[in-house]
Amino acid sequence: MLKNRKTIHIEWGDCDPAGIVYFPCYFVFFDNCTAALFEAAGLPTYEMIKQHGIIGIPIVDTRARFLAPSRFGEDVVVESSISEWRRSSFGVHHRLWKGDTLAVECFETRVWAARSASNPERIEGRPVPPEIIRKFGDRRPARTKRQGRGK
Amino acid sequence: MLKNRKTIHIEWGDCDPAGIVYFPCYFVFFDNCTAALFEAAGLPTYEMIKQHGIIGIPIVDTRARFLAPSRFGEDVVVESSISEWRRSSFGVHHRLWKGDTLAVECFETRVWAARSASNPERIEGRPVPPEIIRKFGDRRPARTKRQGRGK
Amino acid sequence: MLKNRKTIHIEWGDCDPAGIVYFPCYFVFFDNCTAALFEAAGLPTYEMIKQHGIIGIPIVDTRARFLAPSRFGEDVVVESSISEWRRSSFGVHHRLWKGDTLAVECFETRVWAARSASNPERIEGRPVPPEIIRKFGDRRPARTKRQGRGK
Amino acid sequence: MLKNRKTIHIEWGDCDPAGIVYFPCYFVFFDNCTAALFEAAGLPTYEMIKQHGIIGIPIVDTRARFLAPSRFGEDVVVESSISEWRRSSFGVHHRLWKGDTLAVECFETRVWAARSASNPERIEGRPVPPEIIRKFGDRRPARTKRQGRGK
Repeated sequence: MLKNRKTIHIEWGDCDPAGIVYFPCYFVFFDNCTAALFEAAGLPTYEMIKQHGIIGIPIVDTRARFLAPSRFGEDVVVESSISEWRRSSFGVHHRLWKGDTLAVECFETRVWAARSASNPERIEGRPVPPEIIRKFGDRRPARTKRQGRGK
Repeated sequence: MLKNRKTIHIEWGDCDPAGIVYFPCYFVFFDNCTAALFEAAGLPTYEMIKQHGIIGIPIVDTRARFLAPSRFGEDVVVESSISEWRRSSFGVHHRLWKGDTLAVECFETRVWAARSASNPERIEGRPVPPEIIRKFGDRRPARTKRQGRGK
Repeated sequence: MLKNRKTIHIEWGDCDPAGIVYFPCYFVFFDNCTAALFEAAGLPTYEMIKQHGIIGIPIVDTRARFLAPSRFGEDVVVESSISEWRRSSFGVHHRLWKGDTLAVECFETRVWAARSASNPERIEGRPVPPEIIRKFGDRRPARTKRQGRGK
Repeated sequence: MLKNRKTIHIEWGDCDPAGIVYFPCYFVFFDNCTAALFEAAGLPTYEMIKQHGIIGIPIVDTRARFLAPSRFGEDVVVESSISEWRRSSFGVHHRLWKGDTLAVECFETRVWAARSASNPERIEGRPVPPEIIRKFGDRRPARTKRQGRGK
């Protein structure tokens, strides 16, 4: 199962008047880390969107715990992996490390999303294509596995 | 119990290539809404920080559900309130409305935080002063209530 | 000639570890103020883009002078107006006031831009439609004026 | 004379609904590139601020020309160098390359800034210490050069 590691240099502009990372910036980091995870799986966002006719993989749910602050000048490492594949959505798990300290942990639920054919202003979920899931060397969703096509 | 409503105009720069709000921007909105809630309680951040010797009210946990997307040019309304007071932390609840549709819901846990006297690089929680809690016309933490000073 | 005034509340997250506005945020403010100026002229971005088949009004040149810092909790006022119409581009002038003090001044040159018909990945300037310019109650570009169709 | 090169991966969240970099993000890039230039000179921001008692090196003037757009997924390279040292300020020059194409060019004027001793709310320029200038292997300001200590 694919796991990606990305080093992030905390910048001055990532930090707030308390001198520590302004927390919405962590979600920017994690969004970039999800993109980097897909790129590591051979799925750079720009090409993936064009080839599969999706608008992206928007988030529908996220949860984060901030355990230790970071400040500008520090390097942190984010480990990212897919935690679960569902029919038209999937989970991503990020752990941000400051040395050996788990500083932030984040869970994302994202949707494989396209514009509705009947109303292009509407965005709707689509089944995640099996070839996408396969790129992560990952278990398929339960239903697929029972059909004997799982890894 | 104080509830604050803040109208937010979604800007072009809040949106991503899918044309909808880039989700970390929602956390910026909610952070601003927490500040607006405190300001509505008579506690503008700048003065509160100076008077109480804190560095701010950093987040330690957050959870958000994104139910409907928004795009630039739209006005949304965020309703914010304190969901719970604990000893040195408290919960904030935000609901972002697009007309009658609940579009995003977010829960934050924040800490009343100061620099450690022994090591200014270290940030630590401090008991939320009762006069702060009182400003929200709110129930005190359980221990305080048992002492008969609750609302 | 249309001039728009927009009040901006400086937020905690707009500021850096020095406690003052992180300067790229000023460009976000000014971008929003240009959108507000167009909206005041009856041209909200979303509708303008759809009706005129443009991708937006991207910036090709900007210059800013930062004369006095601002910090979170302060309200500033930005005065915005079109400084010049050219064939496919135009100038916008922003002045950010802190009370009576001119705190930031910014000049933008923007282009009326569309995707190239032959290559949709390519963005190209298009002549600004006269009905757009008219909405600002403004002089047309010099060449047009000489043709006697100016205001 | 020190020149620093920094590769930047354009992220989804750096881009706007037109699918190209939202221009204020370029100023974030350039701010990070100035920090990287100083770090390359042996002056990481956090340590520099602490050692020299400054609040940072805020911008007082900037000019940028946007010659070609970039989109998410692209890698660009920024070349940064000090263009001039003045008494308490200095110029930084950034050129952002997309392959062989100069895509953005930016000039910054920054100040060596500290809190006023008499009024800590006030920020004021201080003479740039000669040992800072020396780190860039650079010509001193004109006055210093005339005293025969120039490179």
